[in-house]
Amino acid sequence: MHYPEPISKLIDSFMKLPGIGPKTASRLAFFVLTMEEDTVLTFAKSLVDAKRDLSYCSVCGHITDIDPCNICQDLSRDRSIICVVQDTKDVVAMEKMRDYSGLYHVLQGAISPMDGIGPEDINVPSLIKRLQNTEIEELILATNPTIEGEATAMYISRLVKPSGIKTTRIAHGLPVGGDLEYADEVTLSKAIEGRREI
Amino acid sequence: MHYPEPISKLIDSFMKLPGIGPKTASRLAFFVLTMEEDTVLTFAKSLVDAKRDLSYCSVCGHITDIDPCNICQDLSRDRSIICVVQDTKDVVAMEKMRDYSGLYHVLQGAISPMDGIGPEDINVPSLIKRLQNTEIEELILATNPTIEGEATAMYISRLVKPSGIKTTRIAHGLPVGGDLEYADEVTLSKAIEGRREI
Repeated sequence: MHYPEPISKLIDSFMKLPGIGPKTASRLAFFVLTMEEDTVLTFAKSLVDAKRDLSYCSVCGHITDIDPCNICQDLSRDRSIICVVQDTKDVVAMEKMRDYSGLYHVLQGAISPMDGIGPEDINVPSLIKRLQNTEIEELILATNPTIEGEATAMYISRLVKPSGIKTTRIAHGLPVGGDLEYADEVTLSKAIEGRREI
Repeated sequence: MHYPEPISKLIDSFMKLPGIGPKTASRLAFFVLTMEEDTVLTFAKSLVDAKRDLSYCSVCGHITDIDPCNICQDLSRDRSIICVVQDTKDVVAMEKMRDYSGLYHVLQGAISPMDGIGPEDINVPSLIKRLQNTEIEELILATNPTIEGEATAMYISRLVKPSGIKTTRIAHGLPVGGDLEYADEVTLSKAIEGRREI
């Protein structure tokens, strides 16, 4: 004997999500049975809507429901700076900071020869096209401080250098609130390397 | 700036599930965007179907999509024994064992005066009604070995005793594969108390 079919189908669906195994999936499925019918309908609708209505901004590559996205359309933003990030979630993290008012370019990935991902497979060509606009003065490379992120930043900076646009890389060092004792050697070495006079 | 509306709605929906916080919810929501449209539609449909098509069996209280449920309808099962469990998942656990071929009664809870849950709030009245059927010879009380489960078992056994139906309680003791060294005192004491000649 198994669960009745509707519930085992729901468990199967939950199990397709990352990090959710059979036990968690059945716990979630049984929880759904206790939810209000309206809430479940909203959940189902939001799944379909998210999949159907969202696409990538044709300008910056950010996930959006209108094209160009809100950020690209916002005329109050500084259009002379573009911050290059790997992922949509990075844009949200940057926006939470409230210190940056320029534009973005979301690569949706990073160059990784090991996985067969080259510059053409991520949003590098659209970035190069965008830089032909003479309005742009600075390109901030805010890819992750990982091997792939560094390689991507290096690749883009070399590509952009000849055009005379200023390219910068976000600083590496100790995170605020971090502890020197627990910092790894590479981070510590970057922190020393990037030291400033105060 | 926040996420585009469709994705933040989906994140909100995921956050309504137990054990899913904002970080996991946004990870799941972004994963949904990478899923095949068909899979997402199936997911949405299974949510609605599970909520709409499932109800409790009018005989035993098990979750089912047909009434009476498969187990209650199955004429090959031993109709003289009823196993009383707290939860639908307990039925599935019992069925996995393949050693029991009687019927079930799912209480959908346990008596817990602290939480204001009395016998009338769980499926006890329907059990008493069911016991008026003279076919039934034995009632196995398989509620959880917790304070609430024990209290519920005790309550039901006292209620049923006068009718002359045999009531039994599942055995308490060391779990198979367990280690005497790590067993708690109460389990160990129950194991000694329930010892049998071999």
